[in-house]
Amino acid sequence: MKINSLKKKSSRISEGFLYTDQYQLTMAQVYFRMGMHEHQVQFDHFFRDYPDYGVHKAGYCINAGLEWLVDWMRNVRFTDTDYLHLKKMTGGAGNPLFHTDFLDWLKKFGNYEMIELQSIPEGRVIHPHESLNVVRGPLAQSQILETALLNMLNYQILIATKASRIREAGCRQLMLEFGVRRGHDRGANAGARAALIGGADFTSNAGISFELGFPPKGTHAHSLVQLFLTLGYTEEEAFQAFADVFPDDCILLVDTIDTLNSGVPNAIRVFEKLKKKGHRPVGIRLDSGDLAYLAIRSAKQLNDAGFKDVKIVLSNELDEMNIWQILKQIREEAGGYGLDSDSLIKRLVYGVGTRLITSVGDPALGGVYKLTAVRKNGVWEPSIKISESAEKIPHPGQKNVWRLYDNRGKATADLIGYRDEDLSRMESIELWHPYDPEKKRTLKTDEISASESLLVPVLFQGNIVYDFPSIEAIRFVRDEDIQRLDSGVKRLINPHVYHVSLTHRLMTIKQDLLREIQHA
Amino acid sequence: MKINSLKKKSSRISEGFLYTDQYQLTMAQVYFRMGMHEHQVQFDHFFRDYPDYGVHKAGYCINAGLEWLVDWMRNVRFTDTDYLHLKKMTGGAGNPLFHTDFLDWLKKFGNYEMIELQSIPEGRVIHPHESLNVVRGPLAQSQILETALLNMLNYQILIATKASRIREAGCRQLMLEFGVRRGHDRGANAGARAALIGGADFTSNAGISFELGFPPKGTHAHSLVQLFLTLGYTEEEAFQAFADVFPDDCILLVDTIDTLNSGVPNAIRVFEKLKKKGHRPVGIRLDSGDLAYLAIRSAKQLNDAGFKDVKIVLSNELDEMNIWQILKQIREEAGGYGLDSDSLIKRLVYGVGTRLITSVGDPALGGVYKLTAVRKNGVWEPSIKISESAEKIPHPGQKNVWRLYDNRGKATADLIGYRDEDLSRMESIELWHPYDPEKKRTLKTDEISASESLLVPVLFQGNIVYDFPSIEAIRFVRDEDIQRLDSGVKRLINPHVYHVSLTHRLMTIKQDLLREIQHA
Repeated sequence: MKINSLKKKSSRISEGFLYTDQYQLTMAQVYFRMGMHEHQVQFDHFFRDYPDYGVHKAGYCINAGLEWLVDWMRNVRFTDTDYLHLKKMTGGAGNPLFHTDFLDWLKKFGNYEMIELQSIPEGRVIHPHESLNVVRGPLAQSQILETALLNMLNYQILIATKASRIREAGCRQLMLEFGVRRGHDRGANAGARAALIGGADFTSNAGISFELGFPPKGTHAHSLVQLFLTLGYTEEEAFQAFADVFPDDCILLVDTIDTLNSGVPNAIRVFEKLKKKGHRPVGIRLDSGDLAYLAIRSAKQLNDAGFKDVKIVLSNELDEMNIWQILKQIREEAGGYGLDSDSLIKRLVYGVGTRLITSVGDPALGGVYKLTAVRKNGVWEPSIKISESAEKIPHPGQKNVWRLYDNRGKATADLIGYRDEDLSRMESIELWHPYDPEKKRTLKTDEISASESLLVPVLFQGNIVYDFPSIEAIRFVRDEDIQRLDSGVKRLINPHVYHVSLTHRLMTIKQDLLREIQHA
Repeated sequence: MKINSLKKKSSRISEGFLYTDQYQLTMAQVYFRMGMHEHQVQFDHFFRDYPDYGVHKAGYCINAGLEWLVDWMRNVRFTDTDYLHLKKMTGGAGNPLFHTDFLDWLKKFGNYEMIELQSIPEGRVIHPHESLNVVRGPLAQSQILETALLNMLNYQILIATKASRIREAGCRQLMLEFGVRRGHDRGANAGARAALIGGADFTSNAGISFELGFPPKGTHAHSLVQLFLTLGYTEEEAFQAFADVFPDDCILLVDTIDTLNSGVPNAIRVFEKLKKKGHRPVGIRLDSGDLAYLAIRSAKQLNDAGFKDVKIVLSNELDEMNIWQILKQIREEAGGYGLDSDSLIKRLVYGVGTRLITSVGDPALGGVYKLTAVRKNGVWEPSIKISESAEKIPHPGQKNVWRLYDNRGKATADLIGYRDEDLSRMESIELWHPYDPEKKRTLKTDEISASESLLVPVLFQGNIVYDFPSIEAIRFVRDEDIQRLDSGVKRLINPHVYHVSLTHRLMTIKQDLLREIQHA
């Protein structure tokens, strides 16, 4: 089991067992008092809608965060310090808020050893209303887990999704995550990991790169050139100093003074010296101005000097929309300068910061964690929560999620049903609309080339029963899944809505439960 | 020095000295090779514009994050593990990227002991282009610090600012931070702290509350009622169970089934029993539907049952705009139900989650860290960075920031000038426009009731020379500063632009430097 190699520690109170909302603890005490706290229950983690970045909305998400969650769950337990903090708390009348018997129980059982977990693996394409994680275990612990689980998974899914969109918009060219300075405090580390899963090739964040076994990447800042200028040197001398120290990794930021009249010509002079000494100059970086225009003009200057392979790194508030527009402009204008736009696009590298790590436009994934089943007298019974809006009613019971592929090998729909349903025994597969019990679509078995179950067991009977894949392996899964998406679903703007349907049985049970509760 | 009581640790690589961008390390090696690495330099941290939430933009910010940054700076140092990671890195030709002499130097000097820091205290109102932090020290360390400093300060300022706006929109009623589940991984802890500084009275985040010495606050979730229903109990029995365990802290979530026909009547029945036993029911919570309408109708039901003091907690995607609209509606409609809108507004409590902790609309503060001075031959000389846009040129040199108050005691302008300028000696104060060297405004000394310098020394000659205030003291400063803002500057939408001006000397030196560099 690879889990032993994980390095994360949670020694501080604020990153330990009490990394949760206060109401989880007060509810747990109510359950304890009622003798319900060890009742077996099931919570499902899912999101209800794709991130909506304002003028554009995602058509798919990329799953991420699972390994870090499980690592935290395995290492965290209610400590003596936690005990003392809760013991000291008083309520409105000055009496202790938490009682000694409950705190003693927490001391013994305040951990996640008894939780069973089924999950959709990291890197997979995921859609709304699908159970990404199914948590089963004693009520008190399962309830207290909610906050940390949502905190750790929602953000990584959000960023992996944004990174995937940016990667696709950039035609899968090299992409570097540069956002730590604008990340939300230590969340920047989780953001960097999610970016690596979703679409970034490397991150500039040195510490997390080493923890994840990736080399960090970077160029240099304007301050280097500015400092040299202040000390009486020239831009070329600043470039030369950088090239002398990093002759085989030389990327020069050319826009401090004047990109086309100073930066690029100076870079070329330095590159020529590198070349003479047998080194291969790596690239230039553009960080301001009209990036499409400057990329074209810089490429022209580099080509004329014989540096056709030198990369052009673009940065400055990049996201999928900006990159799309930059590429559009390059395709339209490169020819006018005698350049082949495809070759130019292939030498571009994207440095993506703020707009990736904070998911500008929609900085939160609305992932939720809902009670869906309760074990009564040894039998798991579905539990339903009513809501005025049909979309807010979680699918009840012990579910599975399947993905169906058509004869082109493209994912045609995801199907949510019960764990014991067997798709292979069905003559045709009915895909019922998730909210409208009148609507369905039927797929004949010869229209389906393959189906697969997306949930895998992760925690079972106190053990980790899942071999956590490397980030490289997660990326492989991501690429496969994205290739199997219809291009309509991948559209940047107004994507085709991917079908997430219900089996007939799930639809029926849900409707029955709703009728029952409404007539109660 | 209070600093010794700080508890934060940074044992992981990704939260230690290497919590930085890779290019800071490569640049540091260039400086090392050039013999510039111990050159004394000054970097200023400032932001260029207020957060812009799309349809509305802030008119002021609240400073936050300093104590956590300084704590991190004091505890962090380049470790043997960091050494090994950097030593293993290879460049494009397979050679080591970092050289042994540089790594050995990092081993000795890879810490922030030689950094001097002047800062604007936490809780203060701050504006664009003001030096929030002035860092002075050896070039290499000052450069490497950039990433972590920006990461830790930008986010807390962003959230403290949002929290202040929400507090003001809610007429300074009780406000609870509920957002940990939507925060960006561990960033949620910094977000909770910043929310407490900027406007939240409490947070639901249990761990960080204990670390900061605050009691966490919460109510209960829908899942409590749902669970009781699934196990065959009623909503009233769920409420009763909660009331039995927390008789003096009873806040009931009334919208699981039907707010007005089930939730509130059931809550009233439970409250009546509590009252008979001598307890004081605390509140109800509304988490869905038309919160203004439901607050009015619930208040009416509670009043009719004799519970006029019971609080009404509102939650569900709240932010300053939603709260403003809810209060507007209550003011218009409460009278129609025979309620006094002011009394109703005074019993409201706001539970604010996603939209605060992620600063929806603008999830990143564009704080930057720019080289502004270099010591040459024992003399500090201003350093300037040119840019095509005048607003992007940092103010050079060793500056101070003053705040000027008019005869009403309101802040009338902030003035950026040089550290050795003495406002008290000026007969009148000239406020020069930051970018237009033709524009100025003159204040006579009798128009100014007070002026104060905003920057205070924090780190000096290897020591902490600042007594970090408690969060309560920080809030006191915040309230004072906000009261001294003109109400136009506090407007939610289209606020009056607060003047941040330059002294004549700063304006002149900046213009001279620009001319010099442009003619070079």
